[in-house]
Amino acid sequence: MGMQSIKRRGTQTIELSHPPKIISTYSIVGPKEGQGPLKTYFDEVLNDDTCGKDSYEKAESDMMFNAIKESIKRAGLQQSDINYLFAGDLLNQIISSSFAAREFEIPFFGLYGACSTMSESLSLASLIMDGGFADYVVAATSSHFSAAERQFRFPLEYGAQRSQTAQWTVTGAGAMVLGKEGDFPEVRYVTTGLVKDYGVMDANNMGAAMTPAAVDTIYKHFKDTGKTPKDYDIIATGDLGRVGKQMTDKLLLEYGYDMRDNHIDCGDIIFNSEAQNTDSGGSGCGCSAVVASGYLYKKLMRKEIKSVLLVSTGALMSTTSSLQGESIPGIAHAVAIEMNQ
Amino acid sequence: MGMQSIKRRGTQTIELSHPPKIISTYSIVGPKEGQGPLKTYFDEVLNDDTCGKDSYEKAESDMMFNAIKESIKRAGLQQSDINYLFAGDLLNQIISSSFAAREFEIPFFGLYGACSTMSESLSLASLIMDGGFADYVVAATSSHFSAAERQFRFPLEYGAQRSQTAQWTVTGAGAMVLGKEGDFPEVRYVTTGLVKDYGVMDANNMGAAMTPAAVDTIYKHFKDTGKTPKDYDIIATGDLGRVGKQMTDKLLLEYGYDMRDNHIDCGDIIFNSEAQNTDSGGSGCGCSAVVASGYLYKKLMRKEIKSVLLVSTGALMSTTSSLQGESIPGIAHAVAIEMNQ
Repeated sequence: MGMQSIKRRGTQTIELSHPPKIISTYSIVGPKEGQGPLKTYFDEVLNDDTCGKDSYEKAESDMMFNAIKESIKRAGLQQSDINYLFAGDLLNQIISSSFAAREFEIPFFGLYGACSTMSESLSLASLIMDGGFADYVVAATSSHFSAAERQFRFPLEYGAQRSQTAQWTVTGAGAMVLGKEGDFPEVRYVTTGLVKDYGVMDANNMGAAMTPAAVDTIYKHFKDTGKTPKDYDIIATGDLGRVGKQMTDKLLLEYGYDMRDNHIDCGDIIFNSEAQNTDSGGSGCGCSAVVASGYLYKKLMRKEIKSVLLVSTGALMSTTSSLQGESIPGIAHAVAIEMNQ
Repeated sequence: MGMQSIKRRGTQTIELSHPPKIISTYSIVGPKEGQGPLKTYFDEVLNDDTCGKDSYEKAESDMMFNAIKESIKRAGLQQSDINYLFAGDLLNQIISSSFAAREFEIPFFGLYGACSTMSESLSLASLIMDGGFADYVVAATSSHFSAAERQFRFPLEYGAQRSQTAQWTVTGAGAMVLGKEGDFPEVRYVTTGLVKDYGVMDANNMGAAMTPAAVDTIYKHFKDTGKTPKDYDIIATGDLGRVGKQMTDKLLLEYGYDMRDNHIDCGDIIFNSEAQNTDSGGSGCGCSAVVASGYLYKKLMRKEIKSVLLVSTGALMSTTSSLQGESIPGIAHAVAIEMNQ
C-alpha cells in the first residue's frame, strides 16, 4: 500500500524538508484598525475604507489586489516570477479574491476557509513550495467590515444592536510571498485541521464555535511534533476573541498544555476593545492576515521573537445554514514559522 | 534566486514525477441526470433529489458526503487512511463541502473554484501526492439544481422563464481517491489556470464567460508540454455547453490546435438537451465531477480510451458582483489523466 511518507508526523502534520521562506509580506488595514494597538506594524492604513470604489465589495477586492501587488514588489519580484496565487475571502463565491486575481497573470487556486484562510493559504503555498513545484508563491486573504456585516448580519444602515460576544470584522488584507533563499522566517510545520462542530448555534458567538477546532488543531500539532507550548515564543490563534481565547487555554490545560503565557489571539489584540467598542474583539479573514503579515512578521524579522505558531480559525456556516437550523462547524489550521537567530 | 523547479513545464504546468493514481471514484446523480445519455456510467442515481432531507442544501451536502464515503469504501480503505480531503462547491461559504467534511475525521482544505472545482481539487490533490505529503487523498465536489437555482437565479416556485443560452445545473456529486499503486489511471500533468475576463455580463450565458479561460488553459497546456490535441483520446471541458464548446474549438483552431474530433464538453453530453429541455446543456461543479468520475473514469478503467485532458471550467461571479455591474471572470484548470495500456 506504499510507504508512509517520510514528511508526515502523526496524523495531521507535515514537517517540511525544504522549509520555504516568507521573503516579504504586505498588510493593509482600514482606518479603525489603524487606530488600534498594532497600528505601527501595518504597511498601509486606509484613510477611506471605500478605496474610492462604489461598493464595499469592490473596495475589499481592491485592498487584496494592492496587498498582493505590493508584497511582490517588496520581494523585488515581478508578477511573472510568481508561480501560484492561493487566496480566499469571506464573501459569497470569494469575489474579493477572484476579482483581485483577474488583475494578475498568476495561476490561481481559490480557497474557502472562512477566517482560517491565512493559515490555509500559507499551508498550501508552503506544501507546494516544499514539493518543488514552485519558486515563488503568494498566499493572501482579506475581509471588510461593511461587506461582511451586510452579507452575514445586517446592512449597517439598519442600525442593529450588537451582542457582547459579537466580534468586529477587520477591514484588512494581508499577503505573503514565499521563496527559497535569504535570511527570512521559515515555515517548518503545517498541521491541517479537521472540521469540528460541538453544536454551537449562536452566530453572534463564533469564538465559541471555533474553539473546539482551535483546541483540536493545536493539540494535534503538539502531539504530532512532540513540541510543547514553550517551543514557541508566540502561539497566535486567529480570531477567537477574548471569550474563545480563555476557553482554548482552559481546554488545552486539561490536555496538559499550558499556553497561558505565550498565547495571543489576533482578534483580541488588534483592537482596544473598550476604547474602540469592539466587544469580544476582531474577526474576519483579514484579522489574522494583517496581524501575521504585519505584527508577527515584523517581530520575527527584527529577531524580537524567533518562533510563532499561527493558528487561523474559521467558522464554516453561511446565513442559509444558520437559517436552516444548522450549528456552526469550525476549522483551524496551524503553521509553525521560525526565524534563524 | 533558486533554480527553476525541475517539475515545471513552461509557465503554468507541472509534470508529475511520481504520478498519483486514481484508485477509485464514486458518482451520484439526481433523477434527471439518471435519465440522460450517460446514465449507465453513474454509480448511484437518486430517486429523490432531497435525499430525505428538509432542504436542498442539506441534500447536496448529503450527496457529497455519500460520494466521499463510498469512494473510500471502493478503494478498500478506511477514512483514517485518507490524509487530506480537498473539496468545494457552489453554495455560499461552500456549506455542502464543510458540512460533509464535518462528518469525517480527515484534514480538510476547502476550495472555491465554482464549476472548475473538480479539476482544482484533483490538481491540488495530485500535487500533494506527488510532493510526498500523503499516501491517500480525496478530491470531491457537488452541485444541486434546486439549491443553485434559488441562490443564483430564482427560487423554482417563481416559475421564471429560462434563456436559451442558460444551462441546467447538474444535481450530482463526484469523489476521487488518489493513491500510489495499482493498475489505475494516473495524473500526469497539472496545468493551473489564470482568471480571464473578456467582459461578458450575461449571467445566462456563462459558457461565453468561461470560454476565454478554457481556451487559455488548453493553449497553455499544449504550449507548456509540447503536446497536441491528438495526444489525448478525449479533451473534456467542464460545462461550457454547446455554445461555449463551439467557440472554444474555433478559437483554438486559430492557435493551430484542432480539437474538433476529440473535444467533448461534460455539460453538452450529460443531458439530451432537446428531450430533456436543458437548453445549452448542463453546468455546475457536479457536472464535470460526475462525468469525470463516472463516464471518463470507467472508459479509462475499461481501457476503451487511454488518455483524457480534463478541463473543468468555472464562472467566478456572485449575485452581488453581477448586481454591481461587474462582468464574469472565468477560470479553467487542466489535468491530464492517462491509463497504461
